[in-house]
Amino acid sequence: MKCIIITIGDEILAGKTVDSNSTWLSKELGSMGIGTSMAFTVPDEIEIIATTIEKSLSSADFVITTGGLGPTDDDMTREAIAKALDVELQFDDHYFAKIKDIFAERGIPMPENVRREAYVPEGARVLENGVGVAPGLLLEREGKYFIALPGVPPEMKDIFANQLRPMLSSMDGIEIRRVETFYTAGIPESARCSISFLRP
Amino acid sequence: MKCIIITIGDEILAGKTVDSNSTWLSKELGSMGIGTSMAFTVPDEIEIIATTIEKSLSSADFVITTGGLGPTDDDMTREAIAKALDVELQFDDHYFAKIKDIFAERGIPMPENVRREAYVPEGARVLENGVGVAPGLLLEREGKYFIALPGVPPEMKDIFANQLRPMLSSMDGIEIRRVETFYTAGIPESARCSISFLRP
Repeated sequence: MKCIIITIGDEILAGKTVDSNSTWLSKELGSMGIGTSMAFTVPDEIEIIATTIEKSLSSADFVITTGGLGPTDDDMTREAIAKALDVELQFDDHYFAKIKDIFAERGIPMPENVRREAYVPEGARVLENGVGVAPGLLLEREGKYFIALPGVPPEMKDIFANQLRPMLSSMDGIEIRRVETFYTAGIPESARCSISFLRP
Repeated sequence: MKCIIITIGDEILAGKTVDSNSTWLSKELGSMGIGTSMAFTVPDEIEIIATTIEKSLSSADFVITTGGLGPTDDDMTREAIAKALDVELQFDDHYFAKIKDIFAERGIPMPENVRREAYVPEGARVLENGVGVAPGLLLEREGKYFIALPGVPPEMKDIFANQLRPMLSSMDGIEIRRVETFYTAGIPESARCSISFLRP
């Protein structure tokens, strides 16, 4: 099983933010036997995001994006998904009610633009965000899975841990793996590469 | 001026290492007016690295790779460059003498496989590594620049700071920029996006 991770955001490409999301996701996926075959970082541009999603779906079983699901004009992922998968965005009244509740609970006025976060691509399953506003999105397409997660690390991790991991764990072909790490010191890489670690 | 950064290494895709190199490079390049248009992370596979280099050179002025220049069998970048740019790898006696000096100075025996690090693609300029063994490589191709840097962060930074930055700074079209950062607190992103920071 192969995954491609797409990190979306001008702030990553400008070097303002280190992309720790794809590292975390690769490790989590690896522990379930899903290898990350490639990773891309793309700007907040619908065309580029859409093309990258489309191409990635043609060569991997899972495609996961992080970022671009927020409320502002530079959050383009929903529109890019709609374009890449040729579906409409539909306003989800049920999720919008939840968003209103979140702001009511926080006791702060709800800016008008958060309505954007209640738009869901046709056929997508909404993955509830336990620590923020924007939901994750899951679409199945010809036996492949497209998953969009928010870029804010605690939100991404919450959705992965509470919504995605349980779902993935029960899929056919997923095998939970144990990783062993051997630390060495005082041997240069050029010499260390010939050491074999064999179990007795 | 646009740059594409290619990070090479299975250890990045396995989530064992956070890729901080491309963040650092993007920021440095940005301060010279070179925007990073996309970034890719690819595995230690010659074909994939070569194809990614080729495609990237068709859409950016600069293509920079990090990683895969070490002495071990999974260090494929030299071979991939040769394939992508259709040039031969040539053994550089002069650089090999330098490598021997490095090991002599360190007082440790030189493993046979470090010879790999003295192979240089035909026409490449060798960028001396002030803190490690593997040199960086620079090739000009139809007015575009291909640059290969080691993946070990202190080595990558040393070569960039001491060899590349002075070279890039003197190029036409490079403009040193000043970046101003405004920090805000207590305003959600959905509201903050409408604030304009204008100079008086």
